[in-house]
Amino acid sequence: MAAFVATISGGITAARGFRAAAVSAGIKANNGLDLALLVSDRPASAAAVFTTNRAQAAPVLVSREHLAQSGGSARAIVVNSGCANACTGDQGLEAARTMASETARLLECPVREVLVASTGVIGVGLPIEKIRSGVPAAFRALGADQGAAAARAIMTTDPYPKEAAVRIPIGRGEAAIGGMAKGAGMIEPMMATMLAFMTTDAAVTPALLNRALRDAVEDTFNAITVDGECSTNDSVMLLANGAGGAIVDERTYDVFLSGLRAVCLELALGIVRGGEGATKLVAVTVQGAATVAEAKRAGKAIANSLLVKTAIHGGDPNWGRLVAVAGRAGVAFELSRAKVVVGSTVLFENGHPHDENSARAAEHLKGHDISVSVDLGAGGAASTVWTCDLSAEYVRINADYRT
Amino acid sequence: MAAFVATISGGITAARGFRAAAVSAGIKANNGLDLALLVSDRPASAAAVFTTNRAQAAPVLVSREHLAQSGGSARAIVVNSGCANACTGDQGLEAARTMASETARLLECPVREVLVASTGVIGVGLPIEKIRSGVPAAFRALGADQGAAAARAIMTTDPYPKEAAVRIPIGRGEAAIGGMAKGAGMIEPMMATMLAFMTTDAAVTPALLNRALRDAVEDTFNAITVDGECSTNDSVMLLANGAGGAIVDERTYDVFLSGLRAVCLELALGIVRGGEGATKLVAVTVQGAATVAEAKRAGKAIANSLLVKTAIHGGDPNWGRLVAVAGRAGVAFELSRAKVVVGSTVLFENGHPHDENSARAAEHLKGHDISVSVDLGAGGAASTVWTCDLSAEYVRINADYRT
Repeated sequence: MAAFVATISGGITAARGFRAAAVSAGIKANNGLDLALLVSDRPASAAAVFTTNRAQAAPVLVSREHLAQSGGSARAIVVNSGCANACTGDQGLEAARTMASETARLLECPVREVLVASTGVIGVGLPIEKIRSGVPAAFRALGADQGAAAARAIMTTDPYPKEAAVRIPIGRGEAAIGGMAKGAGMIEPMMATMLAFMTTDAAVTPALLNRALRDAVEDTFNAITVDGECSTNDSVMLLANGAGGAIVDERTYDVFLSGLRAVCLELALGIVRGGEGATKLVAVTVQGAATVAEAKRAGKAIANSLLVKTAIHGGDPNWGRLVAVAGRAGVAFELSRAKVVVGSTVLFENGHPHDENSARAAEHLKGHDISVSVDLGAGGAASTVWTCDLSAEYVRINADYRT
Repeated sequence: MAAFVATISGGITAARGFRAAAVSAGIKANNGLDLALLVSDRPASAAAVFTTNRAQAAPVLVSREHLAQSGGSARAIVVNSGCANACTGDQGLEAARTMASETARLLECPVREVLVASTGVIGVGLPIEKIRSGVPAAFRALGADQGAAAARAIMTTDPYPKEAAVRIPIGRGEAAIGGMAKGAGMIEPMMATMLAFMTTDAAVTPALLNRALRDAVEDTFNAITVDGECSTNDSVMLLANGAGGAIVDERTYDVFLSGLRAVCLELALGIVRGGEGATKLVAVTVQGAATVAEAKRAGKAIANSLLVKTAIHGGDPNWGRLVAVAGRAGVAFELSRAKVVVGSTVLFENGHPHDENSARAAEHLKGHDISVSVDLGAGGAASTVWTCDLSAEYVRINADYRT
């Protein structure tokens, strides 16, 4: 994070002109918070990236449609937890549209200016009557101090809420960027969603906001993995309302991007730390790749390898597994020039093991923040991805009977 | 398996003119059997397929070289367990060459007619002096009744040996095809190899043998997965010595292939059943795919999904996970025409859940032999892959300290 990016509190409501709310609408069986509303006091530029899964949930379809209709403008985002509204057919689409239209009615804005998201059980209908009563209750609860509550309301089985916010200088002014996220907590089977929402009070055109979001997501949210899955509901949304006066243009784009990236990275790493059964955050850096794409591909292969994830869980500095996965990752790889480093300890270099360093590497693996690095010996490109270890607890969580 | 394929006993020595041996050469720390020798009494056609991993172990490099030099002819295969001889540099190559040259010296044949394979720990040198004493001991122990002992000698941490053999009519004669295999047992970390060896007493030209092996491997050994890994040492080798008199040509190719495929499938499924921590064999059939390649790709994605493997382990008929993985597999997929079947029970069809059938599907999942089927709704192609469930035991096995 560059020096001019200052961490602040406030999460999704850290930026001026945004209010949030969290209520219990009765969607979750335990009567917990399950409906979050985020409102910009003025029309905001909006950008979003969605799951690439071909089984797209109803809220993803509706939000895509609204963004296309509005040309990248939004007033509100409404999110429910406890039900993913995925694989729910025409009724699911109707429920997602009702979430948006109820919110638009209260805000007196066009329905296309409301985005929606859902997370929870797949294949179960979203009860429309609970939306009809929940959205007005959320509207009444809106407040500039409700960011933390909203971050709790979008959780399913996440171990803790995930918030982040920064302040950055832009031109002669400054801007706040804040956000909240939920991870892939699946303690109750069939729950699977990564959702993140961010706001800024800078003024950014929809086109530039879209570019910034895509640039920031690439090496943050798109560089993490818990178990290699991609859900039906994954969504990352960003609103920019200009309430702070600072203007983002080509000249100030880079500083805005570094602030946005800092928020994205903190939320993304929070998701990995809160991964099911996770006990360690693991940064996997691949160097010496032919291209950045190949570096990322090898990094993802390593980060998703059960053998690597279990070795790290067990504190085993098992460089052989890292070499073997790099070798099968489908990228250029030269064993005789390859190198494996765990923490700052070299374990394999130029075709030769350095098992005399095993104990030092094992010491590093006892910590909570782990780094492993593999040089493919094939070029000059590099990339980092983040994952968590794989514990028996993950299996216990996901093998639980749904019925 | 077609009706004319009869199962017989004898494994790798079921075919006439083959002898095997198993000895303890002192490579394994526990003094168990760790060196297997397979000899054909006459020169045999030879074919092999090897790992696609770019970090190829020394025995893989040497066997490839010998097959190229001999034009597909071999007298013997020598295999050690307890050491993979991978990532071992020039010394590893010298050790692999010594395995071959010692065997060739005793058999009085060209060294290019000896193939070698290794399985065990990666990155540890193979002690040449133990090879020099072990190979002559194995040579003295050769016998036509030693197939079962050889199948034990190639095990690392496999729960049981894997043998298979069949007899098939070919023209006016008949032929035996037999084999042995080991799986990816990794109780001691850094062990990872799938090895399979097969013999037949039919006469087959090297070119036709090569074609048959590739055809048979495609939907057997290449259609199984335990944890999505591909080792540095994976090898499947097949020798045909003609000692039985039957001749395989274009006319009798298909019947030979069905026999060979039956042996490959039995060995391959044995590997899956013996997967680390496995309690269930799972057949994943993907139908309605645009192409066979897409069917196989989706099948592999499902078979390697942690969420699917843990759900099956827990007996949870979780169709949502199957839909979500099919949707992210990167193949043509139409949710509104998709179908999910567990055992013979439909759980999702034409966009609608059939949760009323959950109990019946859960009953099927209590067994040891599980079948799940996903129709992608995108075409007419199909493919089956096999996997095992994922248990907490797998994590415990692979998280054990190496040191």
